Amino acid sequence: MLRFPAVWLRDNCPCAECLDPGSGQKLKDITEVPTGLAVSAAEDMGDSVVVTYAPDGHRSTFARSWLTAHAPGPAQDGGGRTEDDKELWLPADLAENPGGLPEAGWPCYLAEPADRARALDAVLRWGFVLLHDVPAEPGMVLQVAASFGFVRETNYGRLFDVRVEPRPGNLACTSRRILPHTDNPYRDPVPTVQLLHCLRTADAGGETGLVDGFAAARELRAADRETFDLIAGTPVPFGYRDQSTELRASQPLIQLSPRGRIRGVRFNNRSARPLRLPYAEITAFYAAYRRWAELLARPERQLNLRLTPGDCLIFDNTRILHARTAFSVTAGRHLQGCYADLDGLASTLTVLRRQGEP
Amino acid sequence: MLRFPAVWLRDNCPCAECLDPGSGQKLKDITEVPTGLAVSAAEDMGDSVVVTYAPDGHRSTFARSWLTAHAPGPAQDGGGRTEDDKELWLPADLAENPGGLPEAGWPCYLAEPADRARALDAVLRWGFVLLHDVPAEPGMVLQVAASFGFVRETNYGRLFDVRVEPRPGNLACTSRRILPHTDNPYRDPVPTVQLLHCLRTADAGGETGLVDGFAAARELRAADRETFDLIAGTPVPFGYRDQSTELRASQPLIQLSPRGRIRGVRFNNRSARPLRLPYAEITAFYAAYRRWAELLARPERQLNLRLTPGDCLIFDNTRILHARTAFSVTAGRHLQGCYADLDGLASTLTVLRRQGEP
Repeated sequence: MLRFPAVWLRDNCPCAECLDPGSGQKLKDITEVPTGLAVSAAEDMGDSVVVTYAPDGHRSTFARSWLTAHAPGPAQDGGGRTEDDKELWLPADLAENPGGLPEAGWPCYLAEPADRARALDAVLRWGFVLLHDVPAEPGMVLQVAASFGFVRETNYGRLFDVRVEPRPGNLACTSRRILPHTDNPYRDPVPTVQLLHCLRTADAGGETGLVDGFAAARELRAADRETFDLIAGTPVPFGYRDQSTELRASQPLIQLSPRGRIRGVRFNNRSARPLRLPYAEITAFYAAYRRWAELLARPERQLNLRLTPGDCLIFDNTRILHARTAFSVTAGRHLQGCYADLDGLASTLTVLRRQGEP
Repeated sequence: MLRFPAVWLRDNCPCAECLDPGSGQKLKDITEVPTGLAVSAAEDMGDSVVVTYAPDGHRSTFARSWLTAHAPGPAQDGGGRTEDDKELWLPADLAENPGGLPEAGWPCYLAEPADRARALDAVLRWGFVLLHDVPAEPGMVLQVAASFGFVRETNYGRLFDVRVEPRPGNLACTSRRILPHTDNPYRDPVPTVQLLHCLRTADAGGETGLVDGFAAARELRAADRETFDLIAGTPVPFGYRDQSTELRASQPLIQLSPRGRIRGVRFNNRSARPLRLPYAEITAFYAAYRRWAELLARPERQLNLRLTPGDCLIFDNTRILHARTAFSVTAGRHLQGCYADLDGLASTLTVLRRQGEP
């Protein structure tokens, strides 16, 4: 038998006095619920239950199926953003995955809601999806973003070009090797989705690597709880500065939910700023930092991809670290990228799935 | 005498091999720093110190002033986003504040970098600023946002209208009283700045209230630590649904930094969704929730403003709750709003302040 606290029932009362029928929003504040509330009667009406409250005699009718679905139970973080709602991976797992690499063709993605849903679900579940055959034209990356959400504009613009520049404000715009990192750690809120669309390939090098930061964090926790706790408990300052911008943010390299579940990874050696801690804590932190960096850098963690023109990666920038190998400058590797957010992506997926509902 | 760990010095080495002179970004990863690093020599050069490391003989030259400014010291959250970097207030404090209410005239804000800096600083420090004389024309709110950052587009558009609508998807678009709340709690990342620009006033009612959620949270912590901990430790699900959107997010009503400092407030009775917890925990949570809601609703916490056409509020949506009284429908109250983010606002302020630097 299911049991429900009276105040919870009342706060979720679906009557038109308590819940606006148009918007589905609550009309009552918790302070408007009588104190000392109790259930004075519960009548079984078959598919529904009518609850009467003391002291005020208010009545709620709940569908039995709704009560079953929302019954008290183990605490959850919810929201779909922690390790509990993800498939953590090593590249070897993806090779064994029956569906293979999470990927989709852009024409199918556009034409078929089911394909679009599968691709967006992959970003939430695996942390990324690789779209093929996105026309290799400047600006197309914005169309990909618009297909599931809203562009997060930054100091780099609505979109940004990743190619060799004569006076780069960011090392991304050189031909150097870039180690696994997340983007914009100096932003808070950090952009939670990143897109990278390949327009031109380098003739040598410039390969893309992806690392599942949640899988690495889980491994760190299992192997060395003390290091994990130190990393999760120490805010690290990040910064970016050029002529028109000066950003700073301070967050741990591993972010936890209030229930201690892995919820975010932020890692970027290029833009880390001097850490201020007492002397002994600095030494301890650096030992942990090195351990975490070494674990992230293990070759067996990195999925290596060679993006060809028309490929567009969509990935979770709070989870997946990305890297690239050095490349030959003559060939003119050119990607375009932009940022967006996971909440909009998840909303688009939920609405797509509704279309299968009665 | 200042003491620095060798690994910290090396990680912050400013030489051109370690730090890209163009971008100021680090070229070395922590895994590239030799293990067992030690300082083998430190030479005093007057304004600078030259450090030599064992085992590899690398040398760093640090300005003495830089070392003094970045010396090891008490741990900080940094980033400027917690209670430690804010002025918490009750309306009575603002009345006594020599500068009065944080406000500015739009023409001065545009013309004078110092006025603009003062206004943006107020958003970071007090949580809001009230701009006057912003032309009461549709779309102007986007120009205000563009003056300090980037618009965060949402399902409500780049901007949204707050006025009575025949079939409102959100209770904001009715003439009802709206209790103190933060916006978009069902988004994650939540928009961290909100703007509300008054185009037309109601002839009765429709007054705006602002509550400093950080001040209220600090009071709750001082008065009832157990309730505070329960609120800060319990993720609450929020949701929004209409034909084209279905958002959900789950975060505590008070968010803490990893060091336990108040960092965010999320409160919105209208869009709270059924909480799933074990039976006993639901009862305990609801007692805490009521206590927190009552504290937020105290009239002495609420700053009441009557926005007139041309007024534009800019406020921190992670800290300041906003409310409005019911109003008479005939008068056609009309606000336009949009969202933006604190990181961009803080960057604009920092760059404005640089202009005073040599």
